[in-house]
Amino acid sequence: MIPFGNPLLDPFEDSAVSDYERLFEVFGIQPLAPVLSSFPVRHKYLDIGLAFGHRDIEPILKAIKENQPFAVMSGIKPSNQYHMGSKKIADAVIYFQRQGAFAFYCIADIEAYEVNGIKPDDSKQTAIDNVTDLLALGLDPKRAFIYRQSKRSSVHNLAFQLAGRVPMSLMAATYGERPFGYYLASIVQAADILLPQTEEFGGPRPTVVPVGADQDPSIRLARDLSVRFHRQLRFVKPSALIFKLTRSLDQSKMSKSKSETCLFLSEDPEAAKNKVANSMTGGQPTTREQRSLGGNPDRCPVYETMIHVPKTTTQGLVALRDQCRSGRTLCGECKELCADLLVGFLNKHREQRAKYLSLAQYVVEEGAFG
Amino acid sequence: MIPFGNPLLDPFEDSAVSDYERLFEVFGIQPLAPVLSSFPVRHKYLDIGLAFGHRDIEPILKAIKENQPFAVMSGIKPSNQYHMGSKKIADAVIYFQRQGAFAFYCIADIEAYEVNGIKPDDSKQTAIDNVTDLLALGLDPKRAFIYRQSKRSSVHNLAFQLAGRVPMSLMAATYGERPFGYYLASIVQAADILLPQTEEFGGPRPTVVPVGADQDPSIRLARDLSVRFHRQLRFVKPSALIFKLTRSLDQSKMSKSKSETCLFLSEDPEAAKNKVANSMTGGQPTTREQRSLGGNPDRCPVYETMIHVPKTTTQGLVALRDQCRSGRTLCGECKELCADLLVGFLNKHREQRAKYLSLAQYVVEEGAFG
Repeated sequence: MIPFGNPLLDPFEDSAVSDYERLFEVFGIQPLAPVLSSFPVRHKYLDIGLAFGHRDIEPILKAIKENQPFAVMSGIKPSNQYHMGSKKIADAVIYFQRQGAFAFYCIADIEAYEVNGIKPDDSKQTAIDNVTDLLALGLDPKRAFIYRQSKRSSVHNLAFQLAGRVPMSLMAATYGERPFGYYLASIVQAADILLPQTEEFGGPRPTVVPVGADQDPSIRLARDLSVRFHRQLRFVKPSALIFKLTRSLDQSKMSKSKSETCLFLSEDPEAAKNKVANSMTGGQPTTREQRSLGGNPDRCPVYETMIHVPKTTTQGLVALRDQCRSGRTLCGECKELCADLLVGFLNKHREQRAKYLSLAQYVVEEGAFG
Repeated sequence: MIPFGNPLLDPFEDSAVSDYERLFEVFGIQPLAPVLSSFPVRHKYLDIGLAFGHRDIEPILKAIKENQPFAVMSGIKPSNQYHMGSKKIADAVIYFQRQGAFAFYCIADIEAYEVNGIKPDDSKQTAIDNVTDLLALGLDPKRAFIYRQSKRSSVHNLAFQLAGRVPMSLMAATYGERPFGYYLASIVQAADILLPQTEEFGGPRPTVVPVGADQDPSIRLARDLSVRFHRQLRFVKPSALIFKLTRSLDQSKMSKSKSETCLFLSEDPEAAKNKVANSMTGGQPTTREQRSLGGNPDRCPVYETMIHVPKTTTQGLVALRDQCRSGRTLCGECKELCADLLVGFLNKHREQRAKYLSLAQYVVEEGAFG
């Protein structure tokens, strides 16, 4: 698929990463472990290791501690509904917002068009659904700027400006050989990442971008461009908090295109329950082996699902992991626990969604909010 | 400069074309001569051969004859003032407007940024100057849409849409290996050319684009994209009227960057007079040789300047050409005639400019008018 450039990370296709440590060496992603104790507010995603790496997170931690202005920026390609992977990123945006960040959230409908051929008009309903989830998860709309790429002229113009200093060699090295539209979507994404630092939004300041590892190429591009435009626009290098890819229930990367093994936030709780029941696990083939050898929670989509459910805590998850590893818990029990927690969450989330649907409709119809 | 692709025509740099006939073979530009008699309204630019080629001009001629809706579209990169080359294109836009076309005129400030590094804010004054010239030359603002690329969200979104079906191979074949920003400017230009056919402006219809030969690659790209999007957007292939490049007074292509050999429309008439006096000509080195061998008006910037001056007619120009070729006119006489005509035009044009400056300021400040 990619004749050269990044062999491991592909922001456009479903990437599968088995060895996250290699990303430290190959791409210079920094490991999160050494800075974990410096986070002023702990989060189970950090402690359990869903987030595994970062790029220059220190200015963000400093801004939090010193109560200085900073931004959190992320977004979604409105090609399908929220799944656990999209939720994880939204949760991270909310996490930083609650620690003082002004939040930017981009509906990447230009990317949905360039990569998936879905026209902005046709991704509008999905965008509304996505924004409803984002708000239902707890993003404070009063301290956020939510916008559609296709409707935001200032993003277009920033993208046009950034494009002026992009050699094709940089694009090819970052993304491999791609159609023109993919490159264009990447430049627009770099503009999204740098938008919080424009004069329109108060000028240069630390910005943290929570992303899945497959989006790291876009972080690298935005960071590279921030340097190329530092003198002119005074941009500082954006920071990133980098997450492992969310596994689907068949242990591949969770992909919106494989709905049978993907947990959506707006789906019927009973259907979700069935998906968990049919999920693969990290367990042994027989009860006997499970009791004697123990399971592997690090490879278990059911365990991973439980990390995503709001009710679980780091402490509980660590205990469950130990029980699994020692063979004290069987997969059936674990699936039941997971299904219960999940149904509880989905029911509550559905109620929350009802409260925010109209605001989400307004945001998407208007093109932006904040 | 260009390792592959079009060896002759470069829309980004100053091209020099010595053999226009080769463009018929190499690029499939169609010769104008065979269709010249089908133009309902003659024009000296056609008759004298400033326009030498076309692409699919027939639907335009048919629309004029049958009084059907059609559009004329062109523009300028606001990197410098109007010179005789920009005037020629503006005259062509006005020519088609007077025959029923709705006129679109684009201030290509995104291209000025990508190619020349001039930010839209910094090209605003030049844009005002350009639009003032356009209106002073006679464009009817009531039947025109004049806009700045950077301010026109619908152009951005059309460009984003077009980009989705552009293989990099097409860009490389059309423009050679270029920085990303050049490609982006080209896609935006294709969007400009197809804008008249969008729903916003009444849907598909014949559109003629008067351009200098060096811009033919962009015509090819826009035509290619119109086919790729025909099913979806119903675009018809845009037509083009293709002009020879305007020679500067030292016989290279007239370039805005060489002000000493370039005639600007807003310049001081006395300075213009001096430029003509110092101009190269198509004449012989001595009076004696001129009398016996005759001059070469086809290679003479002074003769070419006289084509541009509004007062001259086809008949007068043909007579002058014959006199030059037969050695009856000397370069000095011709320069004097040219300088007088030019000063007359520039003085009158200055008066016209004064009338339209405020409207041009309004158009550029607002980003669009029409």
